[in-house]
Amino acid sequence: MTEQSFDLTRRETFDSFTPVTIRFSDQDSMGHVNNVSIAAYVEVGRTMIVQGLLDRFDHPGLDFILARVVIDYKRELHYPGTVEVGGRLIRMGSKSLTSGYGIFLGNECVATSESVNVFYDMNTRSSVVPPQDVQDAVRELIAG
Amino acid sequence: MTEQSFDLTRRETFDSFTPVTIRFSDQDSMGHVNNVSIAAYVEVGRTMIVQGLLDRFDHPGLDFILARVVIDYKRELHYPGTVEVGGRLIRMGSKSLTSGYGIFLGNECVATSESVNVFYDMNTRSSVVPPQDVQDAVRELIAG
Amino acid sequence: MTEQSFDLTRRETFDSFTPVTIRFSDQDSMGHVNNVSIAAYVEVGRTMIVQGLLDRFDHPGLDFILARVVIDYKRELHYPGTVEVGGRLIRMGSKSLTSGYGIFLGNECVATSESVNVFYDMNTRSSVVPPQDVQDAVRELIAG
Amino acid sequence: MTEQSFDLTRRETFDSFTPVTIRFSDQDSMGHVNNVSIAAYVEVGRTMIVQGLLDRFDHPGLDFILARVVIDYKRELHYPGTVEVGGRLIRMGSKSLTSGYGIFLGNECVATSESVNVFYDMNTRSSVVPPQDVQDAVRELIAG
Repeated sequence: MTEQSFDLTRRETFDSFTPVTIRFSDQDSMGHVNNVSIAAYVEVGRTMIVQGLLDRFDHPGLDFILARVVIDYKRELHYPGTVEVGGRLIRMGSKSLTSGYGIFLGNECVATSESVNVFYDMNTRSSVVPPQDVQDAVRELIAG
Repeated sequence: MTEQSFDLTRRETFDSFTPVTIRFSDQDSMGHVNNVSIAAYVEVGRTMIVQGLLDRFDHPGLDFILARVVIDYKRELHYPGTVEVGGRLIRMGSKSLTSGYGIFLGNECVATSESVNVFYDMNTRSSVVPPQDVQDAVRELIAG
Repeated sequence: MTEQSFDLTRRETFDSFTPVTIRFSDQDSMGHVNNVSIAAYVEVGRTMIVQGLLDRFDHPGLDFILARVVIDYKRELHYPGTVEVGGRLIRMGSKSLTSGYGIFLGNECVATSESVNVFYDMNTRSSVVPPQDVQDAVRELIAG
Repeated sequence: MTEQSFDLTRRETFDSFTPVTIRFSDQDSMGHVNNVSIAAYVEVGRTMIVQGLLDRFDHPGLDFILARVVIDYKRELHYPGTVEVGGRLIRMGSKSLTSGYGIFLGNECVATSESVNVFYDMNTRSSVVPPQDVQDAVRELIAG
C-alpha cells in the first residue's frame, strides 16, 4: 500500500476551512504579515482538526503532544483581510499523526504547513502506539 | 456646549464594526483570552476608525501618533469564536483625538477601550493643533 | 490623609525591575515596537508585582481579576534591545488595587502603565472588600 | 565532499547565543509556552544570524526572503525564565541558505529549528543564485 500524497497548495485538498482575520499587529517592520503570525493561523486550523479527535474514544489518558511544525511560506500577506485555513489529516506513523494545512487568501495559497502530533499517554508520560480503534478511525479520516 | 458622552458597552453606540477571530494562542494559562490579545483586537478597530481619517485632506506631513490606550475588561472570553469591534470618534482635544471601542461577543460586551491619538507634524516632529478643516470634519464625525 | 502620587516616568519610583527582551516580531509595519507588545511587557511586570501577593495569606478563594489597563506611550522603541519594567503598588480602592509601571530603555522612559486588579472571591464569583490583614499589607507596600 | 551535519540539541554546536525572556502571555491554556511563541524566539535568533549577512557585500538589490521554518518541540517550557537561542548557518543550496537554531533553558534543549532563506533579487523580484563572493563567505561560515 502506497502512501497518499496531498497537494496542500490547492483548496480542493481540504473539506473543512476555518477563517482567521488578519490583525494590524500581525505585520512586521517589513510591512507584511510576520511568519510568527502565520504559525498562529496554522494553530487555529490544527485545533479544529486534531483537538477533539480523541474525544469519541474511551481511552482515558490518551492525548497528543505537538512535536513538529513545518511551515512553507509562499506569498506575502497584508493587513487587512481574512484568510481561510484548510486542514486535514495526511499521514499516520506508528506513534504519530501528521496533519496538513493550506492558508488561502481567496484562491491563492499563501502558506502550507505540516504538523506532527505524537500520541501520548498522560499516565506513563511517554509516547505510545494508539489503540487499534483510534488507528482505524485515523486511517479512515486520512483516506476520506 | 457640553461634551457628549458615549456608552461603549452598548452596540447601539457604534455604526461600524469589524470582526476579529479569536485564536487559540490568544488564550493564556488562566484558560481565557489574555488581556494583551484584547489590545490587538482594539487596534484592529482603531485602524478602521483613525487610519485614513487624514487621507482626504491636503495637509502633507500631518499624521497621528498613539499616545494612550485604556482598556476596561468586562468579561472572560474564550476560544473559539469571533468578536466584533465597534469603534467611533468620541472626543477632540486641542491637539488630540479620542476614539472609543466596544468589543462584543454577540450582544455581550467583553471589553471597552478609549484610545488617544495626538495630531503630529512629521516635518517638525512635534504635536500640533490640526487645521480648521480637520477639526470641523472630526467634530462632525463625533456628532454623527 | 492625602493619597500618595508616584511619577512612573522616573526609575527612582521603583525598587524592583524585570528585564524583557524586545523581539523582531514586536515591531509593526511602522518600523517600531507595536503598542500591543508594550502591553505584554507591562503584563510581565504585573505578574511580578501582583501575582503571589495573596500567597502568604490564608484566605482560600481570594484572588484578583484584571479590570483595567492604561498605557501611556512616551517614545518609539526599536528592535533589538532589552527594556526594564519597573513596577510597584500605587493605590488601593475599597475592592481594588492599582499598580504602576514604568518601562525603561536605559534611563529613558518609553511607556508607563497603571493596572487595576479587583479583589475577587472565587467561591461567590464576585468582587469583595479584602480582609483587614490584606489591606494592611497592601497599604504598607504602597507606603514602602 | 560530504555535507556537514550539526546536532542542534547541543550547546556546543553554537558559537553565538541571544537571550529571550519568556513572557506571561507566551503561555497558552495548556499552561506552557505556546508553540507560536517559540517561533518568535527562533526569529530573534534568525535575525542575529541571517540579517546583516549581506551588508558587507556590494550587491545592491540582493536580499533574503524566508521560505521555510521547521521547529521541533523537545520539552515544555514555562514562564518565567530566559531562554538562550543559539544559531548558525548549516547548509547552502543553489539559491538558498539554511540556518539552524537551538533554544536552551540552561543546558536543556527545549526546541530546535531549521529555517530556509532564499536569495532574492529585489530588482527582478525572483530568487537568484548568489554571487561567488557571497557563496564563498557563506561556505566559510558554515565550515567555521
